[in-house]
Amino acid sequence: MSAEQIVNDFMAAFGSKDQEAAMALVADDCFYDNVPVGSMTGHAAMLEFLGPMFSSKGPVEFEIVRQTAAGNIVMNERIDRFVIKGKEVALPVAGVFEVNNDNKISFWRDYFDNGMFMSAMRD
Amino acid sequence: MSAEQIVNDFMAAFGSKDQEAAMALVADDCFYDNVPVGSMTGHAAMLEFLGPMFSSKGPVEFEIVRQTAAGNIVMNERIDRFVIKGKEVALPVAGVFEVNNDNKISFWRDYFDNGMFMSAMRD
Repeated sequence: MSAEQIVNDFMAAFGSKDQEAAMALVADDCFYDNVPVGSMTGHAAMLEFLGPMFSSKGPVEFEIVRQTAAGNIVMNERIDRFVIKGKEVALPVAGVFEVNNDNKISFWRDYFDNGMFMSAMRD
Repeated sequence: MSAEQIVNDFMAAFGSKDQEAAMALVADDCFYDNVPVGSMTGHAAMLEFLGPMFSSKGPVEFEIVRQTAAGNIVMNERIDRFVIKGKEVALPVAGVFEVNNDNKISFWRDYFDNGMFMSAMRD
C-alpha cells in the first residue's frame, strides 16, 4: 500500500463518516495539527476534535483539488465541505500527511485560514 | 528541468531577493493566489504585492519543511521568514505550484492563516 493510497482511503472513509474505518488508518500516537488552532496527539484528542464531523447529520466531503506524494509524505489541496452548527462550510485547506511503516497515518497537518472558517460559521 | 527544480530555483532566487532571476521563472500570466487575501494575475500585480519583500533590507528565507511533486505540480510546506514594517515574521505556509511547458511557474497558491500574519506584524 502506498502512502497516497492510505490517505485516499482515510479521506474516503471520513467522507462516508465511517469513524471506525477512518480511525483504523490512523496511528494511535498520530500528531494532528490544525495550524491556526493548535496541535494534539492521539485518537482520543482527535476524536474529541473531529467528533462533530463524524456525527454530523449533514454531508462531509473532501474535494481533492490537487495531490502529490513522495515517499511516506502526501500533500493535498482540498475544499472541505461539512455542516457545523447548522451552517454549510466550504473551507479551502492544504493538508500534509505522513504514513508510517505500519501503513498508518502518523502525522496530519492542515493549513487554512481560521478567519474564513469562523466567517463561514457565521454566514 | 523538472517542475520541482524550477520551484526550487524560484525559491532560492526569491530568498536571495534577486527579483530579476525569480521573476524570470514566472510566466507572464501567472495566477497567484494568497488564499485568505485574494488572487491576482501577471507580473505587474505580483510585483506590487511582493515588492516589499524583494526590496526589504532584512533577510527573506523560505524554509522548506516538506515538499512533494507529481508531474507539473509541486507542493511544499514552509516557514516564510521576512521583515515587514520592522517586524520579523515567521509564517507557516503551504504552497501549491504548477509549472507550464515553457518551464515557468504558471500557478502559485499559498495557504496560511491571515490572523497569524497580522499578529506577527503587531508583535
